Amino acid sequence: MKLRVGMAQINPTVGDIAGNLEKIKSFISVAKKKHVDLVIFPELAVIGYPPMDLLEKERFIESNLSAVETLTKQAPKMGVIIGFVKKNPHQPGMPLLNCAGLLYNGKLTFTHAKTLLPSYDVFDETRYFQSPSRVKRTLFFNNKIGISICEDIWNDKDFWERRLYAKDPIRELTKQKVELIINISASPFSQGKGELRYQMIKNVAKRYNLPIIYVNQVGGNDSLIFDGGSFALDEKGRLIAQAKRFDEDFVIVDFNNLPGSEITFQEDELASIHQALLLGIKDYVKKTGFKKVLLGLSGGIDSSLTCLLAVQALGKKNVCGVLMPSPYSSTSSVKDAKKLAENLGIEHEVIPIENLFSSYKRSLNKAFEGMSEDVTEENIQARIRGTLLMALSNKYGYLLLSTGNKSELAMGYCTLYGDMAGGLAVISDLPKTLVYRLAGYLNREKEWIPKNVLTKAPSAELRPNQKDEDSLPPYTILDEILHSYIEENKGKEEIIRQGFDADLVKEVLEKIDRNEYKRRQAPPGLKVTSKAFGFGRRMPIAQKFHH
Amino acid sequence: MKLRVGMAQINPTVGDIAGNLEKIKSFISVAKKKHVDLVIFPELAVIGYPPMDLLEKERFIESNLSAVETLTKQAPKMGVIIGFVKKNPHQPGMPLLNCAGLLYNGKLTFTHAKTLLPSYDVFDETRYFQSPSRVKRTLFFNNKIGISICEDIWNDKDFWERRLYAKDPIRELTKQKVELIINISASPFSQGKGELRYQMIKNVAKRYNLPIIYVNQVGGNDSLIFDGGSFALDEKGRLIAQAKRFDEDFVIVDFNNLPGSEITFQEDELASIHQALLLGIKDYVKKTGFKKVLLGLSGGIDSSLTCLLAVQALGKKNVCGVLMPSPYSSTSSVKDAKKLAENLGIEHEVIPIENLFSSYKRSLNKAFEGMSEDVTEENIQARIRGTLLMALSNKYGYLLLSTGNKSELAMGYCTLYGDMAGGLAVISDLPKTLVYRLAGYLNREKEWIPKNVLTKAPSAELRPNQKDEDSLPPYTILDEILHSYIEENKGKEEIIRQGFDADLVKEVLEKIDRNEYKRRQAPPGLKVTSKAFGFGRRMPIAQKFHH
Repeated sequence: MKLRVGMAQINPTVGDIAGNLEKIKSFISVAKKKHVDLVIFPELAVIGYPPMDLLEKERFIESNLSAVETLTKQAPKMGVIIGFVKKNPHQPGMPLLNCAGLLYNGKLTFTHAKTLLPSYDVFDETRYFQSPSRVKRTLFFNNKIGISICEDIWNDKDFWERRLYAKDPIRELTKQKVELIINISASPFSQGKGELRYQMIKNVAKRYNLPIIYVNQVGGNDSLIFDGGSFALDEKGRLIAQAKRFDEDFVIVDFNNLPGSEITFQEDELASIHQALLLGIKDYVKKTGFKKVLLGLSGGIDSSLTCLLAVQALGKKNVCGVLMPSPYSSTSSVKDAKKLAENLGIEHEVIPIENLFSSYKRSLNKAFEGMSEDVTEENIQARIRGTLLMALSNKYGYLLLSTGNKSELAMGYCTLYGDMAGGLAVISDLPKTLVYRLAGYLNREKEWIPKNVLTKAPSAELRPNQKDEDSLPPYTILDEILHSYIEENKGKEEIIRQGFDADLVKEVLEKIDRNEYKRRQAPPGLKVTSKAFGFGRRMPIAQKFHH
Repeated sequence: MKLRVGMAQINPTVGDIAGNLEKIKSFISVAKKKHVDLVIFPELAVIGYPPMDLLEKERFIESNLSAVETLTKQAPKMGVIIGFVKKNPHQPGMPLLNCAGLLYNGKLTFTHAKTLLPSYDVFDETRYFQSPSRVKRTLFFNNKIGISICEDIWNDKDFWERRLYAKDPIRELTKQKVELIINISASPFSQGKGELRYQMIKNVAKRYNLPIIYVNQVGGNDSLIFDGGSFALDEKGRLIAQAKRFDEDFVIVDFNNLPGSEITFQEDELASIHQALLLGIKDYVKKTGFKKVLLGLSGGIDSSLTCLLAVQALGKKNVCGVLMPSPYSSTSSVKDAKKLAENLGIEHEVIPIENLFSSYKRSLNKAFEGMSEDVTEENIQARIRGTLLMALSNKYGYLLLSTGNKSELAMGYCTLYGDMAGGLAVISDLPKTLVYRLAGYLNREKEWIPKNVLTKAPSAELRPNQKDEDSLPPYTILDEILHSYIEENKGKEEIIRQGFDADLVKEVLEKIDRNEYKRRQAPPGLKVTSKAFGFGRRMPIAQKFHH
């Protein structure tokens, strides 16, 4: 096996077939200059992943096929492996195949169709694709190569306790005496996923004594952040090449000239989450056609962290902070918010909401006659702020970022059309304790977020002397319960057995279930844990099962 | 074949296993009194359909198994066919099986696992279930019976042009010489679906010369409305028994005593949509634990129709209308809204928004300095109304209904957090032209909706002399384009070839695509067409493919 291979880790935009084609061509040019024999692109690189129901559009499939044809004809004398969609020529069956094509010398010389189609969490591939009946190796420059796509490599029977698929395409390929396994992927980021992926694929390499080249998509597409981090392993499972994470990259794996010593794989949890969020913000803003963002600054930790991330992702000139103090806002909150804006050097506006709040109370005076104040009045304040922020968003053309965290979204400790308003929920998959950890991490070199924000007790400041812990258990406890229930999918009894108070667990789980209706109307949120609210967690609203 | 069979068309609540079990028992009691040999319940009757990710909860599956065990032990000497979930005993494979169990004499004597698992539109069954490798018939009172579940019967090779599945479980069963096909279903309503279902199953009966008993779920579950309409056909495909549509029912099919003449199948389009919406409203309100609803009344057709439907579904005492006139509201609109409230005999409140609008303008005065009025100010008015309605909803504990139609939701001619606010979008799957047709239909005997509402030009009344047709093409044209694009999934060129202006088509499709972000945050809407926005149409937001 003497190939010189380029890993082309690109950031395609979903549906932008012309743009993606240009990007692919430019990477091919680089590959040509670097004299590689074979350049490899990620899964569905031509259309971007996940294309979702765009796949149901005839012209979408046709455009993607034309793009592959163009590439085939124009590509220089070099192998190109590229992800695209084919129509399933067989009837009956699902209409499409998720393919990896090998282009060479003006021809599409080989096609592998993805065999294992994930249909869990955020994945819906059985909605569109047919799994082929057989897997075959191909020959390239006389090397026997096994091409696979993403999930195809995630079903090793010794690695996984519970396997979803009867087939193991990698095993099939090894039976055909391949000398190299290639896997093209669009594998989204979540906490610890880089390490899992690396260990799992390393295990496959060692098990079959085969080198593996793994090329992953990079970039944010709505809620999903693809972290790239493409890599190559030799037949001993040693890391011999590695691409950047969270950025485009082109990396050469030269089997004629392997590095003397193994590269070290490292994943730092907070650094990864940080980079993931920056990429998620940057790509969502860019790919939806915005330049600037705005957000409300309360002086609390959530909006402070969101603002800092936005500035890091987009630059301080592209972020606008809005302070909307109410009669219940403390002087220190307003001070903290201003301090943050100054620290970050961003434009900020102050629009007090007291008059608007009074106006609403007057307007509702008759309707509310004889009824006492309650959460209604808290929500009104939040919705005044939502309305003001959306007005600024509409007038200026800035995208509104919402700033809620996962713990409050879980508990419904947030106001629909109020603080939940926005186009992107930046930290909606970060439990409150992780919000604090990430804020501390980002403050490690410089006090971007005023220290007081990190040390004061969290409060929604929607009534006098309100504190989060009046309504919620302490976040350290709450977040553990949330993790068990949402990410680990444990039941009430199981969580109580972990040592939590039975009434507390019951109350927390009930609140989570009851607030599904709020989450259904939340903006897309950047996924960074193994189970985010949104598309990967599909719960009925009108339902009566509890825990 | 001499069985006396009961079709138990029940309305289960998703996840309410205890409640569903009670309901099932009560239908079994009725069946016992009626001396049937066999009583048949719908697909997943124990847990309600669609259970969605509740299926991923261990205790949910356990509870459903306990319920079946209880039923098995307690059921009288009579066959009971019931839909429930089993764990897949085989590894590897998806964790669950969607089953129909035959209970008799204290035992679960037979289980059929659903073989064809839909994973298109609103269906996600491959997310949870394994398709079994074989289909077997069973014996009951010496009758050879083929049991199937919903999609299992939707794959006849002569009926469908394009088939998704290689297997045909009905064909498999007929090869095993069955004398009766039973199909238990949870098949949701859409326009014309009753007729399609009837014709399709009639075709199967005639083709194999076999009687078929088809038992469907009834009831609204979030966006989906199950229309019931269970029926039985004899071996000539003649309709021999038929249950109500849109309501629970128990109907006997006695093969010892078949009716002399065939029953007529009838489906009236508007009557079906009307009943579907009433059931959808009633069940969503009940199953989420509400009693009363409120909604804004603008004097326009959408809110008038929604209000009338709510009154018909819930009773006039449970509906509260809110008039929120602005400086741009015409006198006639306010008059029409009041007239509607009087016609329907509902409580209504009037809360003018002029002062609030001025308050917002003052608050934003500095931020908007030097900028002219635009859609921002229109959105502010809509969001004031949204905030007032949500305040009333919070204070009174009434569910807020939103009143937007499908045409405006498609075009983004609606305001996020404004008129889009609410817990249930009643008519969000009705194109504007269908809104008019349905309103006319409901007004046929009595003028519930003031005539002027049906005849005046539609307007959002958010600026002086505004008319919908200033911003949108005439609805008759728009709705045809929408139908082609959304329901028929046609591309731009194909729609233009139907005879529409090219620029108009381009503009309409672009608006539909661009407004995906608004729809992502819309409340669940009742599905009545073959393709509704929401869960059954999954489009990326940050994407660049156009038509």
